Amino acid sequence: MQKKGNIVVGQSGGPTAVINASVAGVYVAGKELGADKVYGMVNGIQGFLAEQLLDLDEYLAEEQGIELLKRTPAAFLGTCRYKLPAQAGHEDVYEKIFQVMEQYDITTMLYIGGNDSMDTVKMLSDYAAAHGKTQRFVGIPKTIDNDLPVTDHCPGFGSAAKYIAASLKEVIRDNEAFEGKTKLILVEIMGRHAGWLTGAAGLCKGADCTGVDAIYLPERVFDIDAFVAKIQELASQKSSVVIAVSEGVKLADGRFVSEFLSESTDVDVFGHKQVAGSCATLADIVEKRLGIKARVIEPSLLQRTAAHIASLTDIEEAYNAGHAGVCAALQDGLTGVMITLNRVSDTPYVCETAAYDIHAIANLEKMVPEHFISEDGTQITEAFLAYLRPLIQGELHPIYIDGLPAHLVRRR
Amino acid sequence: MQKKGNIVVGQSGGPTAVINASVAGVYVAGKELGADKVYGMVNGIQGFLAEQLLDLDEYLAEEQGIELLKRTPAAFLGTCRYKLPAQAGHEDVYEKIFQVMEQYDITTMLYIGGNDSMDTVKMLSDYAAAHGKTQRFVGIPKTIDNDLPVTDHCPGFGSAAKYIAASLKEVIRDNEAFEGKTKLILVEIMGRHAGWLTGAAGLCKGADCTGVDAIYLPERVFDIDAFVAKIQELASQKSSVVIAVSEGVKLADGRFVSEFLSESTDVDVFGHKQVAGSCATLADIVEKRLGIKARVIEPSLLQRTAAHIASLTDIEEAYNAGHAGVCAALQDGLTGVMITLNRVSDTPYVCETAAYDIHAIANLEKMVPEHFISEDGTQITEAFLAYLRPLIQGELHPIYIDGLPAHLVRRR
Repeated sequence: MQKKGNIVVGQSGGPTAVINASVAGVYVAGKELGADKVYGMVNGIQGFLAEQLLDLDEYLAEEQGIELLKRTPAAFLGTCRYKLPAQAGHEDVYEKIFQVMEQYDITTMLYIGGNDSMDTVKMLSDYAAAHGKTQRFVGIPKTIDNDLPVTDHCPGFGSAAKYIAASLKEVIRDNEAFEGKTKLILVEIMGRHAGWLTGAAGLCKGADCTGVDAIYLPERVFDIDAFVAKIQELASQKSSVVIAVSEGVKLADGRFVSEFLSESTDVDVFGHKQVAGSCATLADIVEKRLGIKARVIEPSLLQRTAAHIASLTDIEEAYNAGHAGVCAALQDGLTGVMITLNRVSDTPYVCETAAYDIHAIANLEKMVPEHFISEDGTQITEAFLAYLRPLIQGELHPIYIDGLPAHLVRRR
Repeated sequence: MQKKGNIVVGQSGGPTAVINASVAGVYVAGKELGADKVYGMVNGIQGFLAEQLLDLDEYLAEEQGIELLKRTPAAFLGTCRYKLPAQAGHEDVYEKIFQVMEQYDITTMLYIGGNDSMDTVKMLSDYAAAHGKTQRFVGIPKTIDNDLPVTDHCPGFGSAAKYIAASLKEVIRDNEAFEGKTKLILVEIMGRHAGWLTGAAGLCKGADCTGVDAIYLPERVFDIDAFVAKIQELASQKSSVVIAVSEGVKLADGRFVSEFLSESTDVDVFGHKQVAGSCATLADIVEKRLGIKARVIEPSLLQRTAAHIASLTDIEEAYNAGHAGVCAALQDGLTGVMITLNRVSDTPYVCETAAYDIHAIANLEKMVPEHFISEDGTQITEAFLAYLRPLIQGELHPIYIDGLPAHLVRRR
């Protein structure tokens, strides 16, 4: 039997509600396939360079640890935003990584992350190929932004989408409880470049919910006049108006909407440009032009951390992606790949894992396609809804201790 | 047997995650005690004046309707912010209310709400007493602000507290996943006058969570210099700093912190005073003085609508309060009272309902007492924690349909 050696898994970039399920999948697959040790790198590749490793047996040898980990949001291992330098002139960084791998008899590195993290996988696998090294590097997708190419969708996105849709259903119930004067709510949704998560606001429409009144994605140029006109039209028709706006909406001249206010006044001594979001800016404009006061909701980090309402489908896919990554390396001998989720069908929803060349993925972003956005740019289409719905199905309720969801945390 | 007549129940003020459980309790008790009809008033007393009534049999005759209603946030019946005018010169308004009650053979009105709504109960029961009318008026407490006097706590608060504590645990997990440069998060929590809900941020500290680093309640004067010094101290000690701040924190001169920025610059053409919250203002100040960029989280309405993580204890107490209100009126013949929750013990947690003179409650606010706040005003005490813990216990998971919590809504 071929020697399996040890495995190391790392987490990188902004965490999600299910990024730890991928660690669980890596651990279980590693053990199943005969790896001696499954190490976790603390704070991603940055920690790995400092030899900050932990033996996952310590936390996951018991099934209970795995179940708790699957319900724990944010990076259990810690994360980083470290970008590997180009090879030329930085061979020492690369040599250090391979030296640590050899020292711990690590044959396979799994790296869970988004666009930037996949660049790390590419750089390391390229280096190994160029220098005749046998270690394997596999990327595991992770991002609530859902903007990695090739894969149908990304683990982490489904749970964020479920959180947004469930929360907006609740907000709409609240706002519709009042009659009379228009109550305008602007909800700012994460996604600086791609509008996938903002689009998920469209999911709340159904038999028991009228849905959000408009959705603004960064894929379309944001026209402030058209926005104000839309608000005016809605306010003349109904008392509850709830709008979902991406934090990343941009004007025709390329500026973020959130930059509009500060640049047009030039007087803000406290630097509002950095602080105000797109919705706070738009609330100012609407109040000034229409005299309608808007309430701004900025869930911010809650969108990527709300494990208490995570999607079971998402958790399972995150787990499967981690599991498949180990199989790709240890069984198929692959390196320089990212695990992808390939949707076979919508009804019934069938989704398989595969491995794809990391060079076609790293540093690239996938935007919401045109046919997922309504012609006037203020709603999503049935096609987008059909894409989204399977991803939010199912629940894996937290383990509640003393009234609150329990989490698995590293001992420090 | 005494004629029971019909009952009407109304909801008033800002909704909560469990305000509908009180409607369910009223309905069930009404039917148990032989009321022929249990009516709901649409949009509170304002709708009642316009004879907007619905027969709750239509929605709640089946047990399934009651179970769904207990899991539906915001006012199922609709709500209002209508303040009953003083009697003098407005007898027509009062006479109209009694005329509608007589027309529908309503002997008892249950009104679910906070301070202002209890004023309505007071005014109507006083009017009845003064004019020899036999109809009974009972208030059912409801407010996430938890600021009604006499009662130990208010239905709606426990669920909001659970949401805040669970969400902050998740946010802290996220923020601690990073190392290196300080990441400062300011979370703005509802409660314009009383700091009960902000205090609930203290609940997240435990075996698996380091807790929030500071908590600022409106009961203490907010000192901007001390706040900045505290941030500086924390930032020098740890990379994750998470602070909970009440939306209602005030400076020594009585201004809200959120008014500080606009009044000190006098140049904000878009009226930031109305829009910026306390945390956005503080983020500006911290960035200017310390060069530390803060991330602001404003869950806003989510705090009172998050039925998806409601406290079972809270749901049951809201239900019991509604139920007890009907018993107080129909069995004990009481009027001009509010149902209170009386805590008998913490461990085991035992809480009973009672009825209390509405005159001691209406228009009054209960603040967080001194011994619930640490000496330096930046944390809560063990006594406050002991008060809070029982209120967030237990879960009643939503009924999920197609991946999202289902709600009971009125047909329009």
